[in-house]
Amino acid sequence: MSALTPQQVDAFVTEVYPDVAQGFSCDAIGGGYATVRWRHDATRLRPGGLISGPTQFAATDLALWFLSFTVLGLAPMAVTSDLHIVFLRPARGGDLLSRADLLRAGKSRIVGRVLTWIDGHPDRPVSHASGAYAVLG
Amino acid sequence: MSALTPQQVDAFVTEVYPDVAQGFSCDAIGGGYATVRWRHDATRLRPGGLISGPTQFAATDLALWFLSFTVLGLAPMAVTSDLHIVFLRPARGGDLLSRADLLRAGKSRIVGRVLTWIDGHPDRPVSHASGAYAVLG
Amino acid sequence: MSALTPQQVDAFVTEVYPDVAQGFSCDAIGGGYATVRWRHDATRLRPGGLISGPTQFAATDLALWFLSFTVLGLAPMAVTSDLHIVFLRPARGGDLLSRADLLRAGKSRIVGRVLTWIDGHPDRPVSHASGAYAVLG
Amino acid sequence: MSALTPQQVDAFVTEVYPDVAQGFSCDAIGGGYATVRWRHDATRLRPGGLISGPTQFAATDLALWFLSFTVLGLAPMAVTSDLHIVFLRPARGGDLLSRADLLRAGKSRIVGRVLTWIDGHPDRPVSHASGAYAVLG
Repeated sequence: MSALTPQQVDAFVTEVYPDVAQGFSCDAIGGGYATVRWRHDATRLRPGGLISGPTQFAATDLALWFLSFTVLGLAPMAVTSDLHIVFLRPARGGDLLSRADLLRAGKSRIVGRVLTWIDGHPDRPVSHASGAYAVLG
Repeated sequence: MSALTPQQVDAFVTEVYPDVAQGFSCDAIGGGYATVRWRHDATRLRPGGLISGPTQFAATDLALWFLSFTVLGLAPMAVTSDLHIVFLRPARGGDLLSRADLLRAGKSRIVGRVLTWIDGHPDRPVSHASGAYAVLG
Repeated sequence: MSALTPQQVDAFVTEVYPDVAQGFSCDAIGGGYATVRWRHDATRLRPGGLISGPTQFAATDLALWFLSFTVLGLAPMAVTSDLHIVFLRPARGGDLLSRADLLRAGKSRIVGRVLTWIDGHPDRPVSHASGAYAVLG
Repeated sequence: MSALTPQQVDAFVTEVYPDVAQGFSCDAIGGGYATVRWRHDATRLRPGGLISGPTQFAATDLALWFLSFTVLGLAPMAVTSDLHIVFLRPARGGDLLSRADLLRAGKSRIVGRVLTWIDGHPDRPVSHASGAYAVLG
C-alpha cells in the first residue's frame, strides 16, 4: 500500500472517533512504526504538574492502533487485546510522545512495543509498554 | 486503622486530585478490596456505544489506588508501578465497575488484581488486570 | 463434551510431550478451571530452598494449557500467546500448585488467570499470572 | 565499577546457582545490556523441534538478572518482581539468544526489556518481554 501521512491518519481518526482525537495527533508514521503526540494541556495535569498514567496509557494505546494502520491500512479493523505498561519516572514538562514499533504482524494479532517520553528527552523514557491488537475478521 | 468509607475516599480524591474525580467514584471499600464506579456518560463513548480501553484503564488504575488506601491509609503515597490489562469482550450499556483485590502488601509494593464489568453483569467481565503500586518512601 | 479427568490429561501429556510431564501433573480439572501440581524436587531448588521463577512459570503455563482442554478438548491445538507473571513472596517448602481459572474463551483466544501457592498454603500465593493461549486454526 | 566479562558472570552463577547454569551462559555484557545464550539441546525440545515457552522464559529471566549485575555488581541482590512475555513466532533450529536492555535503574527496582531470537536471526524475534527485578535491601 502507498505510504500513509500523519495528516491522513488525523483526518481518519477525527472522522470515525472524534472524541479520541481531542488532544492527541499522529506525529509520524512509516514502515513498522507510528508516533503519537499529546499536546501539553495544563488543565489536565495531576498535582505537581504530572502527566497521569491514564493519559500515558491513552497515548500508548493510540500509537499501537496507528501502528495497525501500517499493516491493515486506514480502517478501524483492530481492537486492543492486551497491554502491559511499566512506568519508569515522573512525566512532566511538555508534550508527550509515544512511539510504537512493530514486533510481529500475524493474521489475527499485531504486536508492538511502545516507548513514551517528554518531547525533547527521548533518552529519558517515562513509560514502556508492550501489547497486541486483535485483527477483526 | 479504622475502616474507610466510600464517602471519605471520594472527599479525599476530590480534594487532592479534583480532575481524577470527574466521572469516577468509590463504590465500596473494605479489608483487601476497593471498587470504583464510572458513571455512564454517553458523550464519552466510542462509535457503537463502546466504553473505551483508556476509560477502563483509568477505572482499573483508580481501583488499585483505592486499594492502596486500605493498606496505607488515606494518603497519596503510592504511584502506579506497572499494570497489565487484558480486554475480554466489548463493554457497553451502563456504568462500569472495577473491583481491585489485594494479592500482596509488601513494604515497597502493593500488588492487586482488578476485574471490570458493566453494572448488573458481574459474570461477564469486560477486562481483567494485575498491577502494582510502588509505595513512596 | 464429557468431563475430563486428571488421569486422562496426564496420559495425554505423557504421550504428546513426554518432557513436559517430568515433575508436573494434573491435580484437578473441571468446568472453567485446571490445577497443576509440581512435585517437590530438592535437586532443582535455588539456594535457600527456593522454587525458581522459571519453575513457577512452567507450572503456570501448563495450567493455562490444561485450561484450554476444558474448552477445546484434549488436543494440542493452542499455544501460549502472552503471559504476565507477578511474584508475590518467596516460594519454599513443599509441592507447588497452580490453578488456572477461565476469564474468557473466544474463537481465537482463551484467557485465564493463574494463582500459584505451596500446597497447604492457598491463602499465601507465591505468584499470580494472567495470560492467553492462541487457538490454532 | 570496572567492566564485567561474560566469563566472570558465568563463574559467579556456577558458584552460587549451579543448577541455573545448566544449558545457559552469558554471551555478552556491557553498559546497560546483557545477553544470555541457551545452547541448543535436542533432548529438551517439544515435538516439532520447538524450543518451549518455559525455556524462553528462563533465558529472559536470566538476561534480566545479568542486567542487574551491570547496575549492582556481581551479587545475588535482586529477585524477579514481575515479567510480561509475548511469544511472536515458533522458535526452532539453533541456540537461543536473549538480550536485555536497561530501561530504568531505580533504587528499589531495575526495569528492562528483553528480545529473544534464534542465533543468526536477530531480525526475527521469537519473543519479547518487559520486566522488573526488585533490589533487595
